[in-house]
Amino acid sequence: MYESLLSKRSIFAHNSILEEEKVADSIIKKGGKVIEINRGDPAAYFPTPKYTIDAYVKALRTGRTNYSRDSGVIPLVEAITKRYKKKYNVKASIDDVIVTAGVSEALLFINMATINPGDNAIIFKPFYNQYLTQLRLSGGIPEYENYDEKNNWDLNPESIKKTLTRLKSSGKLKRTKYMLITNPNNPTGTVLSRKVLKEIVDLSNEYGVFLISDEIYDEIYYNKASFTSLSQLAKGIPHMVLNGASKDFDATGFRVGYMLLPENDKTSLELKLKFAEMASVRLCVNTPAQYAFAEAISNGKMHEKEIKHMVSEIAKRVNAAVDVLKENEKMAVVRPNGAFYILPKVDFKSLRIKDDHEFVDKFLKEEHVMLSRGSGFGAESHVRVVALPPKDILEYAMDKLNRFCKKYSK
Amino acid sequence: MYESLLSKRSIFAHNSILEEEKVADSIIKKGGKVIEINRGDPAAYFPTPKYTIDAYVKALRTGRTNYSRDSGVIPLVEAITKRYKKKYNVKASIDDVIVTAGVSEALLFINMATINPGDNAIIFKPFYNQYLTQLRLSGGIPEYENYDEKNNWDLNPESIKKTLTRLKSSGKLKRTKYMLITNPNNPTGTVLSRKVLKEIVDLSNEYGVFLISDEIYDEIYYNKASFTSLSQLAKGIPHMVLNGASKDFDATGFRVGYMLLPENDKTSLELKLKFAEMASVRLCVNTPAQYAFAEAISNGKMHEKEIKHMVSEIAKRVNAAVDVLKENEKMAVVRPNGAFYILPKVDFKSLRIKDDHEFVDKFLKEEHVMLSRGSGFGAESHVRVVALPPKDILEYAMDKLNRFCKKYSK
Repeated sequence: MYESLLSKRSIFAHNSILEEEKVADSIIKKGGKVIEINRGDPAAYFPTPKYTIDAYVKALRTGRTNYSRDSGVIPLVEAITKRYKKKYNVKASIDDVIVTAGVSEALLFINMATINPGDNAIIFKPFYNQYLTQLRLSGGIPEYENYDEKNNWDLNPESIKKTLTRLKSSGKLKRTKYMLITNPNNPTGTVLSRKVLKEIVDLSNEYGVFLISDEIYDEIYYNKASFTSLSQLAKGIPHMVLNGASKDFDATGFRVGYMLLPENDKTSLELKLKFAEMASVRLCVNTPAQYAFAEAISNGKMHEKEIKHMVSEIAKRVNAAVDVLKENEKMAVVRPNGAFYILPKVDFKSLRIKDDHEFVDKFLKEEHVMLSRGSGFGAESHVRVVALPPKDILEYAMDKLNRFCKKYSK
Repeated sequence: MYESLLSKRSIFAHNSILEEEKVADSIIKKGGKVIEINRGDPAAYFPTPKYTIDAYVKALRTGRTNYSRDSGVIPLVEAITKRYKKKYNVKASIDDVIVTAGVSEALLFINMATINPGDNAIIFKPFYNQYLTQLRLSGGIPEYENYDEKNNWDLNPESIKKTLTRLKSSGKLKRTKYMLITNPNNPTGTVLSRKVLKEIVDLSNEYGVFLISDEIYDEIYYNKASFTSLSQLAKGIPHMVLNGASKDFDATGFRVGYMLLPENDKTSLELKLKFAEMASVRLCVNTPAQYAFAEAISNGKMHEKEIKHMVSEIAKRVNAAVDVLKENEKMAVVRPNGAFYILPKVDFKSLRIKDDHEFVDKFLKEEHVMLSRGSGFGAESHVRVVALPPKDILEYAMDKLNRFCKKYSK
């Protein structure tokens, strides 16, 4: 008769960022309020720009509600290629872009299309949790490199070289399907310098490892950081960039992302043809949202205004939150330069709380603030703060965090 | 250095329905017109109802543009449970529904969550092509049952029993993760009688095989057919229904579907918890489209009016197309009772065309009408017609089909 039907891989289907949502729901049901800083959702705090919504409405009112081109509607694909030409001087054609249901679906396609059980991929700790989940769901094994917390969460090319050498000498490099960087990074807020990025590109080329850069926050950097896209430095080398509407364009709920593979070497060509096939299987991405995103990108004047305002606000909020956390003796915090996350390290040895899991759960139940546990991002002993709420609310939440640590101090 | 990065499974990523799109594009680029009857896209011919679009616009104008609940916004989930209560007398709670990016994503979740490489699932030939693709992408093996063309494409419970017995005696039944029926069926247009459906439910229960019914066309039946939902007959038995906005609600471009698992036996419970976890991994489905679909379902008065009109038009178009095809001596056609597909059998022995693939390709290139090849649906020697265009265009295209067959007659 009926038995458990679950596959072995299904154990990996979990999102640590959302695992406390039910606790939060029960608090809210009892009339409580919860400050939700577990999910990186700018559109929850900054209204999606009106010009983008207008374009969305126009698409709906003009009948853009049926299936669209599987790899993305042409106006969107063209807007994306023009963005990369203008912003990063990248030459790309229509066939170089595959529009996906967020970067989430891009990650699904990447892993489904490349990973055989037992193959590996290089990801960097701390990582956006879904990288590991999607890799594992396809049967892949993570090979880790590390952001260096002591060096402001920067990457160390020498250490990457060691890892690549180790993989090569152990024979594992033959089964390394990609190396995935995130720039700016979630959850550390690291913006890679041009120099470090160049060294990573050179290493990927030297060792023949396909390089992917998730650049979903590529317009969200501050504190004097400057951003370089992988697409600027990897000309002539197989690579792929991931991006989308969610963060820069403040439209998380649209679920529109894309993969860009501007090169035409054998590896890149084979991959983009396969991704297009994967896109055809699920028919298309929400059609009117694609037209809205096309306008969001194309109307540079409006976008400039919106992103400038949002980034300036985010910088203020992130820095204000860091300033409060700097007063916390139980936490060590690196000030981020990009995205909108803060990843303080908690000194659990001096607390009557055993780990980040218990910390997040207790903090939510007692103080009604929802964080994410660091271990979900491969950063045990850390917690992740989404620094998006208005400054006063955020400072209030960070102050709660400080008092919570004092309360549980040994 | 860089080698082929493709996984073994990736060979299955292909959509036969869309494989001629590039040929069609090149015809259109040269100034030609193509009658596209390869994709089942009602919203391309019937404008998505205005009341649904109005709700979509309202969601956009009221800021529903950020991430939503991972398993679906509550108003939509409630609208779905109420639909099943009212229409099929099914008791379902919020946790019984998982909203997905179309049935496509539901199929992904089902296969990822249940299939270990080498596991099998029972699917019925001819099948909607994505069933096989998604099963294969997860490493699964299809076990086929057949619609009987000689018996108006009906299912035969005795034959299903034989298949189940065969699987049981060979030990394969232990690895049978589900049996997937489609009602009304794509591509045969079969609407299962209550009697046959009941026998299938009893067999699934007797052999302990989890039963799934894709009922995406559950309001699109005609020619005196009557429809019974699996959810009406499978009370107390583990089962799942798939459905969505695309067909009944004429909103293919929204990409909103759902899984409904109304039972709380151990198997159903385990599955729906896992599907919810899979939903959490990719964060959410397009948010404003979910609110639009909630209204599309909830406004019963408007929906009744719209679906009545659409189904009456579809019936006319399907029957008109069948009438023309009945005159074709090289084709045998069963008149469908549901959905909007026609699947004529081509007598290739009497044609100077070797198979359905060549037939579809030649017909597109010469006559500028795009069909789908039957072999993509497990129906070699057939072609699939989407009978959605206006009657005169459809009759014109069917007439072309008849003349094309005459032209290539041996």
